[in-house]
Amino acid sequence: MSGQKLVGSERQEALSQIPQWKEAEGRDAIKRTFQFNDFKEAWAWMNKVADVADKDDHHPEWFNVYNKVDVLLATHTCNGVSDKDIKLAKTMDSFFQN
Amino acid sequence: MSGQKLVGSERQEALSQIPQWKEAEGRDAIKRTFQFNDFKEAWAWMNKVADVADKDDHHPEWFNVYNKVDVLLATHTCNGVSDKDIKLAKTMDSFFQN
Repeated sequence: MSGQKLVGSERQEALSQIPQWKEAEGRDAIKRTFQFNDFKEAWAWMNKVADVADKDDHHPEWFNVYNKVDVLLATHTCNGVSDKDIKLAKTMDSFFQN
Repeated sequence: MSGQKLVGSERQEALSQIPQWKEAEGRDAIKRTFQFNDFKEAWAWMNKVADVADKDDHHPEWFNVYNKVDVLLATHTCNGVSDKDIKLAKTMDSFFQN
């Protein structure tokens, strides 16, 4: 993981691998909303993600209410989206089975 | 827990028990920000809260980034603040040792 800001074709290629993620408005970041059947499912998913995030020392910005989790990913050291965000997005997608 | 909207002196008395919580702007809800030393501490606290919230079937709206957790509590069935929110706020406070 370089943690360097993704730009140009490299960025497009990376984003094409996570088609459910969208560019955030007003900020160089990516976002996705995950919806679960209930809080228990949402929380189980968040726990799995939290474990990976902390091991990789790369943390999401996320908002939860009941069965819904809004996630925003960015890399503050490069002030944009890096390969660390792409990796975490893929991890989140892979843990999401709905 | 009645889940009924707290108003008037009953509300003031209840809020006086949780002085670190403030009224939210533009919405009948209460809010507090919790700051921890790192993500691991924040997450451990959130896990303890999540367990109680799910047992009581009364869930917070919360936003986490790294060591910070912004919480908003309201009771949607009464469209305001009820004793359920006061109870959850006290639980959160009691788990917060910083």
